[in-house]
Amino acid sequence: MSTWADWLAAQRTAREAAGLQRVLRPRAADDDLIDLANNDYLGLGGHPAVRRSAADAALRWGAGAGASRLVTGTTTLHAELERELAGFTGREAALVFSTGYHANLSAVTALADRDTLIVSDAHVHASLIDAARLSRAAIRVVAHNDVAAVRAELAAAGGRRALVLTESVFSVLGDTAPLVELTEVCAARDALLVVDEAHGLGVLGDGGRGVLHRLGLHDHPHVVMTATLSKSLGAMGGAVLGSAALVDHLVNRARPFIFDTALAPAAAAGALAALRVLRGAPDLPARIHERGAELAGRLGVPRSAGAVLSVPMPSPRRAVAAQAEALAAGVRVGCFRPPSVPDGISRLRITTHVGLDEARWARAIEVLARVIADRAEPAPWGARGGQITGYQQ
Amino acid sequence: MSTWADWLAAQRTAREAAGLQRVLRPRAADDDLIDLANNDYLGLGGHPAVRRSAADAALRWGAGAGASRLVTGTTTLHAELERELAGFTGREAALVFSTGYHANLSAVTALADRDTLIVSDAHVHASLIDAARLSRAAIRVVAHNDVAAVRAELAAAGGRRALVLTESVFSVLGDTAPLVELTEVCAARDALLVVDEAHGLGVLGDGGRGVLHRLGLHDHPHVVMTATLSKSLGAMGGAVLGSAALVDHLVNRARPFIFDTALAPAAAAGALAALRVLRGAPDLPARIHERGAELAGRLGVPRSAGAVLSVPMPSPRRAVAAQAEALAAGVRVGCFRPPSVPDGISRLRITTHVGLDEARWARAIEVLARVIADRAEPAPWGARGGQITGYQQ
Repeated sequence: MSTWADWLAAQRTAREAAGLQRVLRPRAADDDLIDLANNDYLGLGGHPAVRRSAADAALRWGAGAGASRLVTGTTTLHAELERELAGFTGREAALVFSTGYHANLSAVTALADRDTLIVSDAHVHASLIDAARLSRAAIRVVAHNDVAAVRAELAAAGGRRALVLTESVFSVLGDTAPLVELTEVCAARDALLVVDEAHGLGVLGDGGRGVLHRLGLHDHPHVVMTATLSKSLGAMGGAVLGSAALVDHLVNRARPFIFDTALAPAAAAGALAALRVLRGAPDLPARIHERGAELAGRLGVPRSAGAVLSVPMPSPRRAVAAQAEALAAGVRVGCFRPPSVPDGISRLRITTHVGLDEARWARAIEVLARVIADRAEPAPWGARGGQITGYQQ
Repeated sequence: MSTWADWLAAQRTAREAAGLQRVLRPRAADDDLIDLANNDYLGLGGHPAVRRSAADAALRWGAGAGASRLVTGTTTLHAELERELAGFTGREAALVFSTGYHANLSAVTALADRDTLIVSDAHVHASLIDAARLSRAAIRVVAHNDVAAVRAELAAAGGRRALVLTESVFSVLGDTAPLVELTEVCAARDALLVVDEAHGLGVLGDGGRGVLHRLGLHDHPHVVMTATLSKSLGAMGGAVLGSAALVDHLVNRARPFIFDTALAPAAAAGALAALRVLRGAPDLPARIHERGAELAGRLGVPRSAGAVLSVPMPSPRRAVAAQAEALAAGVRVGCFRPPSVPDGISRLRITTHVGLDEARWARAIEVLARVIADRAEPAPWGARGGQITGYQQ
């Protein structure tokens, strides 16, 4: 055995001992499960007009974009999607990326360098954490949603350009950030606030325009928005939204933008079609919250601000067992264990879906209420497992 | 004006002064340009069977995968693509990612940590550079294709696990790496050699199986292969190929895999269909080399090992002017300027395409020969602009 083979084997043994070994389980197109694990909350990824638009784009443009955006990968579809995303969210400009990860890596690494201070919420997504690390900026991680700590770190910035990283709706716990207060703090210190709206776009705000729009911060000069096209818009890709000067800068300096093949035309067309469906159905996002309230009530857990309902479980093994029990009863939910949780607490992650008919929705609630009630150990409601954040992995 | 607005404006002014300002130019589906800028060398992205498969997948599965691979984003399509990619390249297992960037970030960051030494060729792609930085390993950058330097660095590794990073065909200059020698050096020191075959797969080796396969290194335990699905396979996405233990490790530990929505089904289906077309046309890659030799001969530049012909130009402005001249005559080529070149030398980057009919191919050669001949200043053939590598950006 080589050093590397030994090391891989030892890593696996350690994962298995800790109940953290994961395997991929391919799903079939025609399985009949009720899927409350995916992030296509509005059901737009499977909307007939969206499927059709994606298919038509594949027929018209081919399976891929052929090269990076700057070489020959930018199509009129990408430009149209960018115009409509910016218009919908009320920003001056938008730039589309192959993934939300690329969008976050790009926004942060193109803005921050060794002369920059990054102040990051402890619960931000892995892509923002990796972006901060990659930027080579000085990084200060502050406690979750602690505005005073952000203010103190910015006060100590000493004239450096500063970025503050947060999310509008946090991806695992489903809670929100104090964006009005954070924006005030940033504006006072001339820092930029980068807000990941991955779980806000399509879910919150007027017709799904996002949390920043709802708070009137959509055209604030100190706020940069990032988003994904793979959640409420049901397709694939990511976006950064802000000033035209910001987008021009990213086009020229963001390595994960410059050195990546452009988003496939089918995905861009799918996201664009979904955005148009959403514009034509401004009441759709409100249904997420009606159903979310019903689900939380039946499960006896606090309501979620967005579409993600997070249910803490006593241990990784108990979380996996509950997920398996739900699956056996025809309902798929997410199961988040370390390192995918910001606080070390394993949990079921249930997303609210408005595309399900009433009978299937009722069936899902019934199954989940039973699975949750089966927990043998008391749940650590509200408990936080110390300071195990994504930044420590 | 805020600090940030000032900074963005100053950055743009500096780019413009250096002739390095870039803008996106959207192309239409029905433009009649001869496109020698894209990396779809075999024309598979636009093959009727590939377009049809991508479109059918969008209709069947929807516009997106809905969630990360580990949650509910893995479909039977992803699993099928992974099986066939591994079978085609002769590896035990494969793992598919949303982009080639994600594949390289994942392979390196999941294998390397603070206790690891990374020895990297100076010319590797930005995604491998970012991956090395993100891993927090100790990084030693060695001169391009310098086997002795790699050997010396590994000898000084002092018992640390070590990774060596290179490419089979380098993406900008189009040259190849001494893979047999590098593999020997790695095996002797029990290091892993990570080889990006982005421009090797579909281009070199038996029926396009890649350079590692051609050299009999495809099942070597000290060699990890990465690849893209967006170049010769004409779709979108990336892959890591190696042992089943490696893939299991990546599934469990690679953050850009775990925290990213899965590749869209249409892209996976497109890549799979392209791979099947390639298997059924094993003589197709050889045509790249016939045409590449013809092109290089007519332009009076050295032949390329792969499908990328790199033509150095006297300055960024001259490169842009030549590109514009070709475009005006109906031929699109790439133009690479700092920071997209490993040696600081601007160049035209022309890709050989076998999908063009004879008349259009002849027309492209005629236009390019004229544009290249127009260079007013002598070209710095073979010159290297010092040590300006991607690692210094």
